[in-house]
Amino acid sequence: MKTLLLNSADVHENAPMPELIRAIEDAFAAYERGDAQMPPKSYIDLPQYNGDFRSMPAYLDAGDWDAAGIKWVNVHPDNREAYDLPTVMGTMIYSDPKNAFPLAVLDGTELTMQRTGAAAAVATDHLAVEDATSMGIIGAGVQSYTQLEAISAVRPIEEVVVSDLDAERVAAFCERFEDRFDVRGGSIEEAASRDVLSTVTPVEDPIVPREAVGDRTHVNAMGADAEGKHELADEVLLDAKLIIDDYEQTTHSGEINVPYREGTLTDEDIYGAIGEIVVGEKEGRTADDGVTVFDSTGLAIQDVAAAHVVYEHANENDNGYPFDLIGLDD
Amino acid sequence: MKTLLLNSADVHENAPMPELIRAIEDAFAAYERGDAQMPPKSYIDLPQYNGDFRSMPAYLDAGDWDAAGIKWVNVHPDNREAYDLPTVMGTMIYSDPKNAFPLAVLDGTELTMQRTGAAAAVATDHLAVEDATSMGIIGAGVQSYTQLEAISAVRPIEEVVVSDLDAERVAAFCERFEDRFDVRGGSIEEAASRDVLSTVTPVEDPIVPREAVGDRTHVNAMGADAEGKHELADEVLLDAKLIIDDYEQTTHSGEINVPYREGTLTDEDIYGAIGEIVVGEKEGRTADDGVTVFDSTGLAIQDVAAAHVVYEHANENDNGYPFDLIGLDD
Repeated sequence: MKTLLLNSADVHENAPMPELIRAIEDAFAAYERGDAQMPPKSYIDLPQYNGDFRSMPAYLDAGDWDAAGIKWVNVHPDNREAYDLPTVMGTMIYSDPKNAFPLAVLDGTELTMQRTGAAAAVATDHLAVEDATSMGIIGAGVQSYTQLEAISAVRPIEEVVVSDLDAERVAAFCERFEDRFDVRGGSIEEAASRDVLSTVTPVEDPIVPREAVGDRTHVNAMGADAEGKHELADEVLLDAKLIIDDYEQTTHSGEINVPYREGTLTDEDIYGAIGEIVVGEKEGRTADDGVTVFDSTGLAIQDVAAAHVVYEHANENDNGYPFDLIGLDD
Repeated sequence: MKTLLLNSADVHENAPMPELIRAIEDAFAAYERGDAQMPPKSYIDLPQYNGDFRSMPAYLDAGDWDAAGIKWVNVHPDNREAYDLPTVMGTMIYSDPKNAFPLAVLDGTELTMQRTGAAAAVATDHLAVEDATSMGIIGAGVQSYTQLEAISAVRPIEEVVVSDLDAERVAAFCERFEDRFDVRGGSIEEAASRDVLSTVTPVEDPIVPREAVGDRTHVNAMGADAEGKHELADEVLLDAKLIIDDYEQTTHSGEINVPYREGTLTDEDIYGAIGEIVVGEKEGRTADDGVTVFDSTGLAIQDVAAAHVVYEHANENDNGYPFDLIGLDD
């Protein structure tokens, strides 16, 4: 028995978005039903290197399939300048739950981008207006690409406005998608007034004012993943139908963490968890809804669900490099 | 930049025991000094498969070197019968602490055997009589081999008695070592009366009675790694100079966990941690000491320290398979 090694290109090629979105939706549902295990992330803080490591183990039983694994991921903000390495890298071990054989070792960096896009698509599918044809993206970094890829799989997106202070990033984004969408650079206001908005920046001072957001825009707040991060003005959050991915994670490190800590935003302002909507316990968008916001921090079950899809496809397509890691073929 | 893949054979070949022992000793010292981070193991319990997963992240700064990583390991007792797989398998991701690049992915199964042997050797070096020439081993399973390999690196072992209910295992053990040692099968009493004893069984009812243990024997109690496990009679533990690897782990799942829970053995019966002896805060064996016991549960810092040694050697010797996991060479 061999362990399948899947690098970033293999992960990219074996992550068909519609299937990934279904798997992430299944994962949110399993979590809501209590059919998932997700111990709290544990951190190793290395202030001497201005960095940290996080371990994200999880198991989920989606009914038709189950999956287990762990992602080991870091945040080292000085990496680009000091080492020409990404700030965030991840490595994922994907295991067979029934006997723990390590089925695959995957690049967790590409996997994170794919599953984060898919999570936004699940929320968008339940919360955006049905006929959403326009999308705004604020922040044209590595996470922005899968936002468009994923969301255009659940809504008939035609027009895209991307907003970033870095003109090169905007140009690169537009170039990538110009064949498939009417895509252009624009202001935060132009991006925020579209039918769907995804924010994917690391800012700590909100950059999206209340008045910029369209009357019935659905916002995916994807950027905040640590204490102090905050992309949307408090008024956006307070006026919106607010959906979170996980209570502990969002109140500690999600988009809502700052106003929640300050007491500006309380439990009563949270409409529900995405899992509650997915299983039908709570309604998604209704005719009365205006702005909706999905606060996504990223859950370990998403990584495991995404690894499941990628592994199954890679295996079927004979992609990746099979390696006798455990030494059972000796 | 590539990630080095090291399978079980690579790990075995690149784990020179004297160096490994020094690294494990350094790890115990770093932990004692507060120069290590080791979040509690987190568990995923899968009763439907009679198994579990554990994640063991760690960082340590040994002064001359530092290292970070995570081991993902399982216990599935039905594996051999149901899947012809080992009960315990491990996969280790070894990362550069300064930028988090995944330097290596290693077979954690072989790594665990090596580092567990090395830990017993560190304890034996500080606690066995100087002129120990005889060794007993109770339990001739996969962990027994590295006990002899490691301990014979710190004491001039000549005579070895191995005790196991399974005659085939005893024969296999003897065959492996007959060229280098005067090795034979024997009773628990014969094994336990040697200068050094290592117990490496999964039993829950003690199999080593007080009267079997030699007057000045040093015992490495390696088998207990879960609540309820217990290899040595309580009297052995109570009469001995008792050294642990970690207070939390040993009182919860080490050799002492059962009598500790029952109140038969209390904090006052614990002489100290191996780290305290290694840094010189407490004395190892003195002229007055009789039986000494090292209760080893296995720490995540041992895995990281062992991975450091293996990676450095493999890299130097051009062993292993370099793989562009992160996709930086694209």
